[in-house]
Amino acid sequence: MKKDTIKLAILGSTGSIGQQVLDIVKNFPDRFSVTGLAGGNNTGLLMSQIKQFQPKLVYSVQKFNIPGNTKLCSMEEMASHPEVDIVVVATSGKNGLTPTIEAIKTGKKVALSNKEVLVMAGAIVMADAKLHKASIIPVDSEHSALFQCLQGEPVKAAKLILTASGGPLFRNAPATLNSVTVDEALKHPTWKMGKKVTIDSATLMNKGLEVIEASWLFSMPFSKIEIVIHPQSVIHSLVEFVDGSLKAQLSVPDMRFAIQYALSYPERLANRNLPRLDLPKLNSLTFEKIDYSMFPCLQLALEAGRKGGTYPATLCAADEIAVELFLENRIDFTQIPEIIERTLSLHQSIDNPTLDEILEADNWARNTSLKILSKVNS
Amino acid sequence: MKKDTIKLAILGSTGSIGQQVLDIVKNFPDRFSVTGLAGGNNTGLLMSQIKQFQPKLVYSVQKFNIPGNTKLCSMEEMASHPEVDIVVVATSGKNGLTPTIEAIKTGKKVALSNKEVLVMAGAIVMADAKLHKASIIPVDSEHSALFQCLQGEPVKAAKLILTASGGPLFRNAPATLNSVTVDEALKHPTWKMGKKVTIDSATLMNKGLEVIEASWLFSMPFSKIEIVIHPQSVIHSLVEFVDGSLKAQLSVPDMRFAIQYALSYPERLANRNLPRLDLPKLNSLTFEKIDYSMFPCLQLALEAGRKGGTYPATLCAADEIAVELFLENRIDFTQIPEIIERTLSLHQSIDNPTLDEILEADNWARNTSLKILSKVNS
Repeated sequence: MKKDTIKLAILGSTGSIGQQVLDIVKNFPDRFSVTGLAGGNNTGLLMSQIKQFQPKLVYSVQKFNIPGNTKLCSMEEMASHPEVDIVVVATSGKNGLTPTIEAIKTGKKVALSNKEVLVMAGAIVMADAKLHKASIIPVDSEHSALFQCLQGEPVKAAKLILTASGGPLFRNAPATLNSVTVDEALKHPTWKMGKKVTIDSATLMNKGLEVIEASWLFSMPFSKIEIVIHPQSVIHSLVEFVDGSLKAQLSVPDMRFAIQYALSYPERLANRNLPRLDLPKLNSLTFEKIDYSMFPCLQLALEAGRKGGTYPATLCAADEIAVELFLENRIDFTQIPEIIERTLSLHQSIDNPTLDEILEADNWARNTSLKILSKVNS
Repeated sequence: MKKDTIKLAILGSTGSIGQQVLDIVKNFPDRFSVTGLAGGNNTGLLMSQIKQFQPKLVYSVQKFNIPGNTKLCSMEEMASHPEVDIVVVATSGKNGLTPTIEAIKTGKKVALSNKEVLVMAGAIVMADAKLHKASIIPVDSEHSALFQCLQGEPVKAAKLILTASGGPLFRNAPATLNSVTVDEALKHPTWKMGKKVTIDSATLMNKGLEVIEASWLFSMPFSKIEIVIHPQSVIHSLVEFVDGSLKAQLSVPDMRFAIQYALSYPERLANRNLPRLDLPKLNSLTFEKIDYSMFPCLQLALEAGRKGGTYPATLCAADEIAVELFLENRIDFTQIPEIIERTLSLHQSIDNPTLDEILEADNWARNTSLKILSKVNS
């Protein structure tokens, strides 16, 4: 007997993660169907996704003619629509925040790939999820690994260990970083991802955001979250338990593992399209201590996370602007942390902020970091 | 408020595992107490254990005067005693078999370190455990790792991957093996264990027994159990799930991790006496394919396991005799598999054997392997 399919709304369907979500959906037509697609600026791709998956609801940044039966709506409407079971939040930056909150308020299962949602508004999102019995399943490979390792463990973890490949510039001498080109920073050694997150991986801002996200997801203090450099990206993260035993989750570096697990959780689905790890074919798995002094963005993120209030929202917004400017060749690689640091230093944080106050801080940080740029360049 | 302690019977308390079980008990006096101790030939150690832990019940291979309140009994009586909650089976060879079955028939939790129990009589033991709702928690590091990785996973594993250090002779050229001394074979690179199991690690017989044991414990066919050489013994085993994702359990190689987990399961207990794994301090974790042709004992074990019947009991008994002969310098290292192979080739296996038939096969194999020795030496 064919089961009812699980109905998905995919926010950010034209991005790197969104496309891989649809790849998994294609592997399991009896299991998953697409109720909503929210795309970015790649209207051509969105149009072809609509043709292929026939969603009921569509959101598009760009205006365009949609086919007959499809209805245009906002991401918030889509995320809270009664015919949606799982909302996949694969937008980047702050755009995922309010739709995620709407999904949670209607008690949905949220497959969360967008880091900024929890970094910006972790307290609000986690409290709402508890109140409305909504579950948040992480899609990031590191958080999915931690989530998987924590299954069936009745005692709280002693330590979360996030692995970091170190990104494309890990072996660069600090003195050479200001001359790094966009192309060099986009050459990630192990993961194929979107541009923003790849640059964030090069600065290790990404790992800082992950620490903040892990802290919210698993309600762990920063002091119990460690980062270890693991250049091969085979062990996606580890949990150390109170007895000193550790569990790790491993796979070929391919985001579809974490995506599929988030969609099928708590089950696992057999999928021969996902590549198998052949342990003897690996050269070796290595681990290195991280030298925090080499990665100012990581330090800024951890500091903003520890301080809390509206600092993390400010961090995200300033980083989004700074990375955009770098991708447009308007600033050097080493100016990314400079702009973020200056923005944070000017920020007046609000404790226990409301959603409006968080969005206001985001707005303020965008304007401020652009103003800092014009001063830097003048 | 002090909880009632969990009452242990420790079969094989004077052996390597038994002593480490008592070490864990000492770490948690509020949690565990000792109701029974069954020792081997080291009467002095057994006596001092009795003084320290004041058990109600004692079994000893050697006769000796026991202190006032302690009662001498058989291992079977001890294992099924109403005041025992967990029976730790840390005997070696076939001695653990009937006490384990008695423990299971009284519905107890069995922490199983003795491999031969399941290798010899897996069908009977697992059926009895199901019937009497007794749980079997593995104490072997590999099986404990698999057991831990399977917690909270609702879907059956796709593959179990047992790691093997390769033992002390892994890098030896095959031509040099017949001249290996007892001391060389006892120098295990990563684990400190009893003599029998250390020699079994050198021949990889141990890994073969582990495959058979894993097959029973996790009801997996041999075709879905793999062995991978992992010389560092940090990853104690891995589970591959149907989606291609893997989980691994890691720790410093120290048997107390698996022992403590078996005693505290499903909980974990904070224990600062257990050494912590420092990932960046590891050189690297490596994996190699196993060359089966190098390890005749491993091949014999897998073949006996696949054939079933009374072959595995015959394998265990012949191995016990052969290893003893090697430790007594009466045969060469390469004669261990020779004696086992000849014994197996003469064996008339019985399908679906009863416990008596299994014990008879054991007895037959011991006599036969000694007869083979006298022919070899004549």
